Amino acid sequence: MNNQVQLITYADRFGQGQISDLHRYLTNNLKPALAGGVHLLPFFAPIDGADAGYDPINHDQVDARIGNWEDIKKLSSDFPLTVDLIVNHISDKSKPFLDVKAKGSQSPYFELFLTKDKVFPNGATEEDISKIYRPRPNRPFSLRKLGSGEKLEFWTTFSQHQLDIDVQSEAGKKYLHRLIKQFSEAGVKMIRLDAIGYAIKKAGSSCFMLPETFDFISEICEIAHSYHLEVLCEIHAHHEIQKAIAERVDYVYDFVLPPLVLYTLFTKNTSRLKQWLAISPKNCLTVLDTHDGIGVMDVADINGKAGILSHQEIDLLVSSIHKNSNDSSKMATGTAASNLDLYQVNSSYYDALGGDDQLYLIARALQFFCPGIPQVYYGGLVAASNDIKLLEKTKVGRDINRPYLNFKEIDIALQKPVVQKLLALMEFRNTQAAFNGEFSVLSSDDSQICLHWQKNQFWSELKVDLKNKTLRIESQDGAFTFNSKPHGTN
Amino acid sequence: MNNQVQLITYADRFGQGQISDLHRYLTNNLKPALAGGVHLLPFFAPIDGADAGYDPINHDQVDARIGNWEDIKKLSSDFPLTVDLIVNHISDKSKPFLDVKAKGSQSPYFELFLTKDKVFPNGATEEDISKIYRPRPNRPFSLRKLGSGEKLEFWTTFSQHQLDIDVQSEAGKKYLHRLIKQFSEAGVKMIRLDAIGYAIKKAGSSCFMLPETFDFISEICEIAHSYHLEVLCEIHAHHEIQKAIAERVDYVYDFVLPPLVLYTLFTKNTSRLKQWLAISPKNCLTVLDTHDGIGVMDVADINGKAGILSHQEIDLLVSSIHKNSNDSSKMATGTAASNLDLYQVNSSYYDALGGDDQLYLIARALQFFCPGIPQVYYGGLVAASNDIKLLEKTKVGRDINRPYLNFKEIDIALQKPVVQKLLALMEFRNTQAAFNGEFSVLSSDDSQICLHWQKNQFWSELKVDLKNKTLRIESQDGAFTFNSKPHGTN
Repeated sequence: MNNQVQLITYADRFGQGQISDLHRYLTNNLKPALAGGVHLLPFFAPIDGADAGYDPINHDQVDARIGNWEDIKKLSSDFPLTVDLIVNHISDKSKPFLDVKAKGSQSPYFELFLTKDKVFPNGATEEDISKIYRPRPNRPFSLRKLGSGEKLEFWTTFSQHQLDIDVQSEAGKKYLHRLIKQFSEAGVKMIRLDAIGYAIKKAGSSCFMLPETFDFISEICEIAHSYHLEVLCEIHAHHEIQKAIAERVDYVYDFVLPPLVLYTLFTKNTSRLKQWLAISPKNCLTVLDTHDGIGVMDVADINGKAGILSHQEIDLLVSSIHKNSNDSSKMATGTAASNLDLYQVNSSYYDALGGDDQLYLIARALQFFCPGIPQVYYGGLVAASNDIKLLEKTKVGRDINRPYLNFKEIDIALQKPVVQKLLALMEFRNTQAAFNGEFSVLSSDDSQICLHWQKNQFWSELKVDLKNKTLRIESQDGAFTFNSKPHGTN
Repeated sequence: MNNQVQLITYADRFGQGQISDLHRYLTNNLKPALAGGVHLLPFFAPIDGADAGYDPINHDQVDARIGNWEDIKKLSSDFPLTVDLIVNHISDKSKPFLDVKAKGSQSPYFELFLTKDKVFPNGATEEDISKIYRPRPNRPFSLRKLGSGEKLEFWTTFSQHQLDIDVQSEAGKKYLHRLIKQFSEAGVKMIRLDAIGYAIKKAGSSCFMLPETFDFISEICEIAHSYHLEVLCEIHAHHEIQKAIAERVDYVYDFVLPPLVLYTLFTKNTSRLKQWLAISPKNCLTVLDTHDGIGVMDVADINGKAGILSHQEIDLLVSSIHKNSNDSSKMATGTAASNLDLYQVNSSYYDALGGDDQLYLIARALQFFCPGIPQVYYGGLVAASNDIKLLEKTKVGRDINRPYLNFKEIDIALQKPVVQKLLALMEFRNTQAAFNGEFSVLSSDDSQICLHWQKNQFWSELKVDLKNKTLRIESQDGAFTFNSKPHGTN
């Protein structure tokens, strides 16, 4: 991928048109800011399933309501494209599972799915099951009565409507290979391995990020590389696991950054951020917001390994988000708030910062100057507030940060001063050669941070002073002042 | 102070002669290695009190059995000298307290001591007392029946034989001022403020490192500076408190380093050390060993603030030390081991590393390359093992790392290959100009660390590889090979 800013967006929530409309809008209005391309969230059939595209019925089809593979191909020719490979499961309404439902173990698709007894041929004890690591309280199996009269327990890590694939079976391998090939043919540049940490199951283990999972990730990488695709691995875990994965793939996410930047701004103390930057993986994508919530387990103590923040500090972080968002994030996070290790806080980043334009720009400047390729979520691009109406309608916590915006609304949002400044910042990030050079954190007080990039004679430097709430950006071209001329009006 | 290696030693345990003998021995045998001078542990009367000099009867007198102020003056003219200012207390056998004991509140010395009612004129509730932070389970007061018939409770933070001084009284201020002046006249370069965190007491507070304590430290600094003395502040506390103090004084200790270097070597993972170096104070003295134990609270979570290590990681650290020392450290640490936040592990550093020469040299190389002026404790200088015999004799846990060595024993110890290499490393540290320049941690795998110093054209670099247990030092003069010619034989 280019080391430039990439947009994360749904095809149906940003503009609410077809893929081709989105393509046109981005080209006409946002190309300089989004030189890094687009991560198009699942656009497969159906785009509006129970998990907003992450529960595909046909992972190999574009949802016909928004376009086709030709549209994807066109988009990818203008914007380097990242798409999701949903490795772990497919919908129970998928053709393969419907066939299994009808014919049971006689179905030619039977091998594609992971039954409980494939992992536990001698049955699973309660201890076995309690060892399985998962972010949900229910059991990871669903009992299904099949047309054949068989009653079988299937692995359903996420929900009973998402059937886990046996990724180690020949059928599973072929299925994933076929998808990767199809992405390649559509001009995709990078695949994002969704929830890959859960892909490999083994009796008596946590079934999460096992040594075998690392090997599996390497296998997927090999296939992807043979099609000239890069691989981004999505895992929420202790930062040391994240770093171990970073050695196996092209990119991981720096998921420490979103909560840590908030903590830094809330406490006006840069010390923890400096500590993190001393060890953060360099082959990463940086985010502040995504279609998921703000993960706190990424900064927490896990299994006795020290985190970046203590539990009390995480409490402070979470309660500050809730306070800043007038408790709307609390509504969206629900019972999750009581179990911080495993869950995420649902809020727009802008509202997590109390809708403070200056703090939001400081947060984005920090993101853009931290090592990694920056991604900006469509909600964050327009400095969206929490969508309480959508949350009330759908009762899906994460919908608070998944607004449906039409192009008219986006036009207006792009004119907001904070967004204009953000766009200028993104263009700066996209055009400075220094960001391909060496990174260093210069010495400063705990209330300040100074991030420096240098490549030969080119340099860019960010100085943030949290006491005075100021940011200053300089480069070989002089001090950078935020561009306030209107964007996207050609 | 010079940015060169300094020895920490007792006058009566390293050589077991007089101060003048110690002076001669250091001059003849160790001058190039100890260009930074000497921190001479309390040499006041008596040098062999219950707390090995930290419970002076006459803080203004040199113990006549080992020398006089003239000897100190001579020593300081050859070796930049650091001495302790025992701020918090004096012995109950001191002349002022004996006078108070006889005459009660009518004694002219009465004002020098801190009674309970000075802090709690209306009495102290159990809540007040439970708030007082202290590393011991007993109460901080001792009831004394005085010759006057008065019964008064005195503050005794450490033991009932160490009477706390009212440092905010005129008498207390004069007492400390007089001592500082005397040190200055003896040619001392730096004073070490012992246990200063406890000096200021205030009703309803923790009586530890209060805002008023910070102000008091600043006051002491001002007096010291007026006599051209530098100030080193000794406090074991959460690293953020340490950093706050670093802004007020000339030097603090980097007390994170001793446990963190051990943890780094035990786990073969440099990640935590890199995190620490991103935020460690630069105006510090580095140590691995001192006359006290290895502090673990310096790396721990305190009051909900994230530490450098988690409790489980500290457990691993402590149990590894005990294992490496064949449990001799466990014997010396006693009940303390069960209360890791507040106590220290007593062991020689060499034995904490299982007596492994190569690991010990790696530890010292790391120390010398981390920012700060390095101090080497006399036990560490000769790579001493735990003194189990002394421990058995005195039953004082810390004596396990406070051996009595005569000059003959030191002569022999200095010939050990590990000590020869250590001395070469010290001379390298003392003579390279780069150490007065800019420090940086270069990017590397978690199993390695690469520390770089640069001043103009001069540079020194340490590369440690923990997987292969190797260290490599380079500078503008080429790769550094450990000097194996005998030292100290002139």
